[in-house]
Amino acid sequence: MNILIVHAHPEPQSFTSALKDAAVADLSAAGHSVVVSDLYAMGFNPVASAADFGSRGDADYLNYALEQRHNVKAASLAPDIAAELEKIQAADLVLLSFPLYWFSVPAILKGWIDRVFVSGIVYGGRRIYDGGGLKGKRAMAIVTTGGRDHMLSPGGIHGDLTETLKPLLQGSLGYAGMTVLPPFYGYHVPYIGAEAREAVLANFRAQLAAIDSREPLVMPSLADFDAEMKPL
Amino acid sequence: MNILIVHAHPEPQSFTSALKDAAVADLSAAGHSVVVSDLYAMGFNPVASAADFGSRGDADYLNYALEQRHNVKAASLAPDIAAELEKIQAADLVLLSFPLYWFSVPAILKGWIDRVFVSGIVYGGRRIYDGGGLKGKRAMAIVTTGGRDHMLSPGGIHGDLTETLKPLLQGSLGYAGMTVLPPFYGYHVPYIGAEAREAVLANFRAQLAAIDSREPLVMPSLADFDAEMKPL
Repeated sequence: MNILIVHAHPEPQSFTSALKDAAVADLSAAGHSVVVSDLYAMGFNPVASAADFGSRGDADYLNYALEQRHNVKAASLAPDIAAELEKIQAADLVLLSFPLYWFSVPAILKGWIDRVFVSGIVYGGRRIYDGGGLKGKRAMAIVTTGGRDHMLSPGGIHGDLTETLKPLLQGSLGYAGMTVLPPFYGYHVPYIGAEAREAVLANFRAQLAAIDSREPLVMPSLADFDAEMKPL
Repeated sequence: MNILIVHAHPEPQSFTSALKDAAVADLSAAGHSVVVSDLYAMGFNPVASAADFGSRGDADYLNYALEQRHNVKAASLAPDIAAELEKIQAADLVLLSFPLYWFSVPAILKGWIDRVFVSGIVYGGRRIYDGGGLKGKRAMAIVTTGGRDHMLSPGGIHGDLTETLKPLLQGSLGYAGMTVLPPFYGYHVPYIGAEAREAVLANFRAQLAAIDSREPLVMPSLADFDAEMKPL
């Protein structure tokens, strides 16, 4: 497989980074081709703006999605966006590695989605969910948290984390057509000792080795909705 | 009231920006003091990093939340963070004005939360929800979407938008202790005509004028959880 790991942690010595390094090592050793986009190390710009477009369909008014489509056709997307798109298009599996910031991805990773998931390739019109532009690729999030397991579970104070991550899991990865695997969660990692971290790391490696038996999350299907996207 | 409007749209002529301008005009005319953080106009940096800290508790390893606490005590947060924090602390009502990007806030606004909602002031330990650092302040999101109402409602293809926005509404604003009002949604606005936009704008102004009768969303309460945040 071709595997893209998108990593978003500001501290290279962090446990989140150690999980990413373990994924690179294990997946490479298993014979896969692994590419890493380390967003902090790259100084990735997360701000969607007019500067993302080498040409303009409408120079006087910025509709970001329409300019994405225009620039896909004109092959004039900003080079950093084009480079990430190329990595995604080559990938069979995309892993997103990040610490939970405010029950979501860090801004640098949000901006990677905002800018790289371009209309006209990744989505647009009925090109969503099982019609999405990234259909056939798998995605999995690798998430570290400050909170404990019981706080991020059904009935817990913050509720079920996989449901809370719907904007990412369904609204971005699933919307784009990817087969979305349940995330791996490393709970409370800034506050646990070395031994507990080793156990989390070992558990992660075991889950990654068994990724082919991971049951995907259920996503909406276009077959259940009419031409106006109303339920049939 | 002191009102802070945090605005995140790259096009000043956008309908999202028109909603923001209407809010500024109407709230100022009603005698309130209105401050706007126009994140694109400010060139706001959304990337949480070591550069946010004028001093370090641990110079060799970046734990972002711990350094936030250290820099609150040392009064050495980056000037742009300190300035935004001051605006929040002075505000009775915070309005977040943004277009829905991937069922969430644009990265520039996500980074405003990542960097400005600092541990030690806004949250930390049991300083969350009804114990949160921003207790007593109200917050409301003003959200424009490309999708139609029926696509973003219960039973619709993408599901209920207010539930989908949980990471923002509960996980950020509510977590920080704010009283969170239901969002205003302007649906499908890039694709509707001038007359329909006028109707959305009029509806928005009416809802804003009646903000005091808006029933807040229900948030978790610390009273329902024990010292380990387990349900009582």
